[in-house]
Amino acid sequence: MRTSIATVSLSGTLTEKLTAAARAGFDGVEIFENDLIGSPLTPEEIRDRAADLGLTIDLYQPMRDIEAVPEAEFARNLRRAAHKFRLMRRLGADTVLVCSSVSPHAVDDDALAAGQLRRLAALAQESGVRVAYEALAWGRHVSTYDHAWRIVEAADHPALGVCLDSFHILARGSDPTGIEAIPGDRIFFLQLADAPLMALDVLQWSRHYRCFPGQGDLDVAGLVRAAVRAGYDGPLSLEVFNDVFRQAEAGRTAVDAQRSLALLQESAGLTAPPAPVVPTGFAFAEIATADTARITPLLSALGFSRTARHSGKPVDLWEQGEARILLNTDTSGHKPDLSLTAVGLETPAPEAASARAESLLAPVLPRRRAPEDAPLDAVAAPDGTEFFFCATGRRGHADWTGDFAPAPQAPTPQAPAGIGVTRIDHVALTQPWHQFDEAVLFHRSVLGLHPHASVDLADPYGLLRSRAASNAEGTVRIALGVGASPTDDPARPQHIALVTDDLVAAVRGARAAGARLLPVPANYYDDLAACHTFAPGELETYRELGILYDRDEKGEFRHCYTLTTGRLFFELVERTGGYDGYGARNAPVRLAAQRA
Amino acid sequence: MRTSIATVSLSGTLTEKLTAAARAGFDGVEIFENDLIGSPLTPEEIRDRAADLGLTIDLYQPMRDIEAVPEAEFARNLRRAAHKFRLMRRLGADTVLVCSSVSPHAVDDDALAAGQLRRLAALAQESGVRVAYEALAWGRHVSTYDHAWRIVEAADHPALGVCLDSFHILARGSDPTGIEAIPGDRIFFLQLADAPLMALDVLQWSRHYRCFPGQGDLDVAGLVRAAVRAGYDGPLSLEVFNDVFRQAEAGRTAVDAQRSLALLQESAGLTAPPAPVVPTGFAFAEIATADTARITPLLSALGFSRTARHSGKPVDLWEQGEARILLNTDTSGHKPDLSLTAVGLETPAPEAASARAESLLAPVLPRRRAPEDAPLDAVAAPDGTEFFFCATGRRGHADWTGDFAPAPQAPTPQAPAGIGVTRIDHVALTQPWHQFDEAVLFHRSVLGLHPHASVDLADPYGLLRSRAASNAEGTVRIALGVGASPTDDPARPQHIALVTDDLVAAVRGARAAGARLLPVPANYYDDLAACHTFAPGELETYRELGILYDRDEKGEFRHCYTLTTGRLFFELVERTGGYDGYGARNAPVRLAAQRA
Repeated sequence: MRTSIATVSLSGTLTEKLTAAARAGFDGVEIFENDLIGSPLTPEEIRDRAADLGLTIDLYQPMRDIEAVPEAEFARNLRRAAHKFRLMRRLGADTVLVCSSVSPHAVDDDALAAGQLRRLAALAQESGVRVAYEALAWGRHVSTYDHAWRIVEAADHPALGVCLDSFHILARGSDPTGIEAIPGDRIFFLQLADAPLMALDVLQWSRHYRCFPGQGDLDVAGLVRAAVRAGYDGPLSLEVFNDVFRQAEAGRTAVDAQRSLALLQESAGLTAPPAPVVPTGFAFAEIATADTARITPLLSALGFSRTARHSGKPVDLWEQGEARILLNTDTSGHKPDLSLTAVGLETPAPEAASARAESLLAPVLPRRRAPEDAPLDAVAAPDGTEFFFCATGRRGHADWTGDFAPAPQAPTPQAPAGIGVTRIDHVALTQPWHQFDEAVLFHRSVLGLHPHASVDLADPYGLLRSRAASNAEGTVRIALGVGASPTDDPARPQHIALVTDDLVAAVRGARAAGARLLPVPANYYDDLAACHTFAPGELETYRELGILYDRDEKGEFRHCYTLTTGRLFFELVERTGGYDGYGARNAPVRLAAQRA
Repeated sequence: MRTSIATVSLSGTLTEKLTAAARAGFDGVEIFENDLIGSPLTPEEIRDRAADLGLTIDLYQPMRDIEAVPEAEFARNLRRAAHKFRLMRRLGADTVLVCSSVSPHAVDDDALAAGQLRRLAALAQESGVRVAYEALAWGRHVSTYDHAWRIVEAADHPALGVCLDSFHILARGSDPTGIEAIPGDRIFFLQLADAPLMALDVLQWSRHYRCFPGQGDLDVAGLVRAAVRAGYDGPLSLEVFNDVFRQAEAGRTAVDAQRSLALLQESAGLTAPPAPVVPTGFAFAEIATADTARITPLLSALGFSRTARHSGKPVDLWEQGEARILLNTDTSGHKPDLSLTAVGLETPAPEAASARAESLLAPVLPRRRAPEDAPLDAVAAPDGTEFFFCATGRRGHADWTGDFAPAPQAPTPQAPAGIGVTRIDHVALTQPWHQFDEAVLFHRSVLGLHPHASVDLADPYGLLRSRAASNAEGTVRIALGVGASPTDDPARPQHIALVTDDLVAAVRGARAAGARLLPVPANYYDDLAACHTFAPGELETYRELGILYDRDEKGEFRHCYTLTTGRLFFELVERTGGYDGYGARNAPVRLAAQRA
């Protein structure tokens, strides 16, 4: 179906909004009245600008407080409408949104509303305009879509139909299947927005917290299915009021919006893009640094051995069990020094994963960095991290390890047998403040991971937000974090968490090899002693080694952290009995210690 | 009464929080458990640190999910409590907060709750600890203070009393006068927080949006009066969970908190600080710039004449009607160039105003900048603007104009008769993002102005917030604005609005004299034509001159803006018929034009 976006969903001047929408591939736009009023362009210039960009103007909106009022007031409203219809002709927009009245003068009289909307539609028709009547969730007398439809049906004018807005319908808990009873050609417009579930006044919720479909908790796809079954064939149009999107760069927001509509159409069964390919594990994590002197002793102390070197690039492979770290000294990518720049995901079908990513507008990276390299499919995430779709050691697929030759000899002292790390548990990546919703949607839709609930973590200088995304087995876990505000340190540390089956032994090994671990306050262990009972000596061992502890109904979690180097630190974790979290209870202690 | 603050109300490490609380003059603190657990200091070191700073530790908090549970679980809870009571001895804290249970295992059995709390209190007493039981607004079975008191009364143990929290009580709409029925010596603690009214889930509202008393909409003073009537004589303690305060500098927040408690005690009739002195008008607005060449032509074009020069400083006085602008070329104060740095307020009793400001911890500035100057009382606002309490031309008071000598001759061409400006209507000042609540409270309490409702203004790159504060007559108006996020331009323009009784004539005069006004889009006037009817020619005049228009039920508002110079622009306004606003409807048009 055609895609459209309301200008209010994007930041900037009207020109910037139109440009962003066109570049992201939208077919049309809704012009939000205030964007036009504030623009120095004439309506004709706006029409031409949109046409040059290949955009249709699908809706002009909103017209408020029109119907079900005393005749004198309605006469004034018709006069106002006549002005706007003339404007729409100049603009080349043929459909206007009329919201159900919130005026204190409006009366609860459906017949009056229908009669006046009929007169409005007749006037509109003279200008070649159609009127799409929408029930605001907080409308004074009309607040549900079926009520709006009854009035439209009673008015019985060909230039009058309904506009359905997923937020207004789903936020009130209305059943969208009733939409199927409306003739499709009387559904003049479909506005789509999602929102996280919040126990908040619906007007405030609507004006500040809407988000793109798939980023919230509403079943927008179900509503779209109902509208399509009803016969609706107009555009799928996003109308999102969001305080963060208002500040974000419009071009990025528009791409995020298009991705959301692509997913929505897939969810609603309208399209069948390449299916999601769920990763099965981590192939590697890649660290970039100009100077390896700070990181190689740490890798060694954590039990990693340098096993191979890339044949054409300054990249070393360090391994322990199935955990692999690439150390890249080519830092021309302008990332902060000593940061996690790329992640390899074991993927059943790398090319299919790449095809899906491309269909969802993810920035697909060139397959070969150098002619001699194995062709690797990769995409860039919203925070700039590169995700590679890998098939390590699998026949019939290009294998990235083929680009590496065994290291002639170990350049640094190492623990030959490792410390018992078996694989990567998770990577934690800080997202740009304005792109957190985009990042979650990206990891879900492009990487095929399942996002978990958002949690607040108390840092001494503000509340951080964290949301994990994982595969069902928990063999791929990515913790997406975001700072307390856009001024929060954009280079806030990332980390790589490593799995061990015996954390105490691993920590003893790492410490013996010189690893410096984050000190944990004694008060933390006094609290643990108050809250839980432990086997004799267990708590003392944790206290001695700086191990943090958590348990839930399924199992236990033990973990500890290295000091931060550059933008990076490591975590060692031991999960038992199906514990599925990340020790969020301990995060404030870790954050305070890192600030100390 | 003694004042206290919960460490969770302030940002930073525990040491930073204690230092900030002490510097702001608090007598004590509540130690929030997570702040202790995350601290590298031992409980004894924390106790000593607090003592060195002159702070008592008034409360340790919170202990959760203790009561009304099966015996086996209660035994575990008692064990946990015993650990915490030992900790409190080390810490030197003698009162612990126990919140009503939210545990799914808790049963609705007041007798069980009372019996278990009695056992808890007996254990506490052995460690010299008192238990203060508080009803959380979202407690599973106990969510009101009178219910908590009934359980405490039934438990009947001298080491068990209630903790009253203004948020939990007022957020649920409970009547606080029932507090008077509780014996004062059984009210062990009083926690105070305000909050803006929000239709939001009470837990989220409590955890993110609390603010200091006087910054929200709850009648905290009424609750304090009730507690004092009941005989409570413990500390007044602030417990505020606020996402912004968590990020703000703790020292400033602590001062803001102390000011709030000073006002609260005044409101509750517990203290009688110097009474507020409401200003009656603007004496002057002072602009600082190193180079007057950009501003003097604009002042001249707006009809101002340079009338006098300060006898000892590089400050010129420009006048028109009762509007006075000081132009100060001493820019050693490190303000952005061409910015509004000071405001003179006509004050019936300048010394009394200064005394009040001092009692409310406002930074009072030295009375004489130079030995020969008239002694002027002045304070610095949270955004750094200096407010002078003036008595222009009034006998018996020092008069700032006495420091000025008539200008020998006009240095620039000028409109000799002016353009009809009679006085300053308002000044608009952008506040630091983290200090907006503080700024509103400051203007209310220190300057004696009445704050109006907060409004959102749509800028192309985010929603701005604006809140006006004025005296009853509307002769002093200050519009406090704040950007969409902390990254928003901190030097966002300020402006000075000037009153004229004939805006059309004033604009013609200003334009003839070379003033450059902000261009207003033609689309704006098309919208005005749709929305209102005008006298013949009226709208065309507005369109020609770039005049904006608004009306409300009381009257009309016409206004226009100059282009921005440095950090400053001017507005010309005409109010008729009691219009009391600021043309918020037109703000998006102005903001878009300023971004163009």
